[in-house]
Amino acid sequence: MTNASADGRANLALLTDLYELTMADAYLALGMHEPAVFELFVRRLPPHRSFLVAAGLDAALDYLENLRFDAADLDYLATLGLFPERFLAYLAALRFTGTVHALPEGTVFYEQEPILRVTAPIIEAQLVESRLMNLVHFATLIASKAARCVLAARGRRLIDFGMRRAHGAEAALLAARSAYLAGFDATATVEAGRRWGIPAAGTMAHSFVQAHASEAEAFSAFLRARPGRTTLLIDTYDTRQAAHTVVAIARELAARGEAGRIEAVRIDSGDLDAETRAVRAILDAGGCGDVKIVLSGGIDEHQIEALVSGGVPVDAFGIGTSLDVSSDAPALDIAYKLQEYAGQPRRKRSVGKATWPGRKQVWRRRDTDGRMTGDTVALEHEALPGEALLIEVMRDGRRRGPSPDLAASRARCRAELAALPPALCGPAAAACYPVMLSAGVTVSVTPVLPVATAAQGRTELP
Amino acid sequence: MTNASADGRANLALLTDLYELTMADAYLALGMHEPAVFELFVRRLPPHRSFLVAAGLDAALDYLENLRFDAADLDYLATLGLFPERFLAYLAALRFTGTVHALPEGTVFYEQEPILRVTAPIIEAQLVESRLMNLVHFATLIASKAARCVLAARGRRLIDFGMRRAHGAEAALLAARSAYLAGFDATATVEAGRRWGIPAAGTMAHSFVQAHASEAEAFSAFLRARPGRTTLLIDTYDTRQAAHTVVAIARELAARGEAGRIEAVRIDSGDLDAETRAVRAILDAGGCGDVKIVLSGGIDEHQIEALVSGGVPVDAFGIGTSLDVSSDAPALDIAYKLQEYAGQPRRKRSVGKATWPGRKQVWRRRDTDGRMTGDTVALEHEALPGEALLIEVMRDGRRRGPSPDLAASRARCRAELAALPPALCGPAAAACYPVMLSAGVTVSVTPVLPVATAAQGRTELP
Repeated sequence: MTNASADGRANLALLTDLYELTMADAYLALGMHEPAVFELFVRRLPPHRSFLVAAGLDAALDYLENLRFDAADLDYLATLGLFPERFLAYLAALRFTGTVHALPEGTVFYEQEPILRVTAPIIEAQLVESRLMNLVHFATLIASKAARCVLAARGRRLIDFGMRRAHGAEAALLAARSAYLAGFDATATVEAGRRWGIPAAGTMAHSFVQAHASEAEAFSAFLRARPGRTTLLIDTYDTRQAAHTVVAIARELAARGEAGRIEAVRIDSGDLDAETRAVRAILDAGGCGDVKIVLSGGIDEHQIEALVSGGVPVDAFGIGTSLDVSSDAPALDIAYKLQEYAGQPRRKRSVGKATWPGRKQVWRRRDTDGRMTGDTVALEHEALPGEALLIEVMRDGRRRGPSPDLAASRARCRAELAALPPALCGPAAAACYPVMLSAGVTVSVTPVLPVATAAQGRTELP
Repeated sequence: MTNASADGRANLALLTDLYELTMADAYLALGMHEPAVFELFVRRLPPHRSFLVAAGLDAALDYLENLRFDAADLDYLATLGLFPERFLAYLAALRFTGTVHALPEGTVFYEQEPILRVTAPIIEAQLVESRLMNLVHFATLIASKAARCVLAARGRRLIDFGMRRAHGAEAALLAARSAYLAGFDATATVEAGRRWGIPAAGTMAHSFVQAHASEAEAFSAFLRARPGRTTLLIDTYDTRQAAHTVVAIARELAARGEAGRIEAVRIDSGDLDAETRAVRAILDAGGCGDVKIVLSGGIDEHQIEALVSGGVPVDAFGIGTSLDVSSDAPALDIAYKLQEYAGQPRRKRSVGKATWPGRKQVWRRRDTDGRMTGDTVALEHEALPGEALLIEVMRDGRRRGPSPDLAASRARCRAELAALPPALCGPAAAACYPVMLSAGVTVSVTPVLPVATAAQGRTELP
């Protein structure tokens, strides 16, 4: 699937940090063109999180395949007075020619595990840092948040309602995609439906009800105006009263041979537990046992968990802001770090941000039921038991093959979530999945580069 | 300034919630074309916030002026099987013909105050809801966060470093713009520099240091490769050792007649208070009193405040993730609500989400020094003392004149922040600015619409 990024332009080369360009200029002037290996990983999981879901790879590969500086880009850079002609000419011809290893989208991963590795001449590998991070970080952030909702909902339908408070256009679109990848059923965002074939959902806002003289008139008008089955929003004035109104209208519809036109009611405010039970009782008593109940209004995975485990008769959730901004953790501690240059492992030992040098692979072990039991981060050449998670997805700047389509990634994510250790599945869980570092990683530091002894966050060390 | 939105396309009509289209179809079928008045406002300020800064209007007006459904949009909608031909034909001809009143960008505002009001035939006014909110919400969110950093920094230079963890491309660009509007001095995001003339900043990452055999070699190489003044990143291995290295290199440079080439050093990790003082002392003792210190690495307004009020000798801050995702409050409780239809005020009384009906104006009072002393939200026709904040910016679908350029909006914001009550200026402050509701607003509820008695959050009522 191409054009997975949300921007209409195939390329946005200047969407980068200035320092990527000043470093590139310096590398060019210094004649430094040896291969560099950078790895993208999350240093520490956010508080109260026990796993993450990789996403954004398809968009990242699109970006790499299409990266080029056009004349307008170069004209602007020239105006800055920061770059010599020779560098601008170099940029004009620059294409990404590197190799990429990555976790397939939908793969569960943990802290300190590389989710993407770039091997390329250092200018190229460095230059792509900002946008690669920007794409993979956000897509992963939302897929991870959505997966928590999916686990909590235990099969109830989930719809992305978050566009209005998502951080701009691309965020709204990528959030819809990531949510669907992680197991959501639909999105309200039409453009996401067009772009990726995600089912679109939505019927009415409070304003539709307000624009009519009464709620009953609004419901009847909507049913009259639009054929097919619909969802009525029932909390504009008094939710329980509106449920009685729905029952009355359903009876009229049935009398006209239009039974079943009301598919669901939506409640967007108030005490959702109490209102849902009351509305369910009113609907059932009124012969509307087949009318479903959709809940929305600032819901997150904790509320889903509470409502579902409390036996509240809810059929579907519309999840908006908490999903699209990942409200409990609006950013991940993600980094893209140089691990090797010119064949030498490289280590950073900044306080709290030290890295394990060398190009790495993640090996995952499973029990006989397929449940994940533990991972080891090893050097690439170490062969360990289990499954190697990083696969080569791009070589010499071209995809190794078509990326999995969104449905395939979604299926992968479903299988991954089913294979999580049960202790990691609840929204309140912050259980520590065992991630070990191999002997190769921990002894790989070459004498020229300093060794730090700082602990690596919560990751268990061998 | 046109094309203020970050998407390369002038138009993205399907970037909307599906229910905007289903309601539009229903309104068309029902022949409902009377004028509707919608207001965009923030219900409650986030915890620990005492004001917000309006932004995003220019992008919003661009969107309204350019809104149109093209053939590809309509083809996609037809595939959904949800809309009749007549509606799609209507959409093909649809343009936004309404009137918009709004706070100019850079205006300080508070909860329950309309920041934008749309008056248009109900289909148009409704249809633009999702993208208007998406644009204004995010731009306002970041301008408000940035303003807190600006107040805390008390004149120290601020640079937006947030692109990599911003939520996608548009978020990165709009964040850079909002931060500059609120008083930031520069951005690392090159494309934001091109789009809006924001000064771009940036020199090197840790990887540049790591790619060399030693820090001294990395610094010397960078200075050799790039002319002009530069900032050296000094925390890759040992910050204080690196400061001594900088002193040694500065001496060599001076000996070669290249004094002043090192403009600043940047520290990105560790105990920033202690490291900055130590580095300052090393630099000063080494004759580098003119070398500035830039701090970065997960800094937010609280840390700026602590460092600045603690007398730490810092000259500039690079603010990344906390700014671009507004980490303490990644979303605002913003709403776009129907206040009037066909000349009748309309009220929603959902629990916790009740609205004050009628088209409104915000009147602001100031003391003799120009400091804000209190606001009153009134009906449009009530003339109250003070300044009317909402101005007509669009009529019949066209701007009333060119929007203020970014520099003008930035100057406005500076003046606004200078006029804040002092109790509202600190990052920990959650003082309550007095926002009153006029008698007109509180009695305007017509008999046909229910009156709620729920308190309106923290807003003081008359």
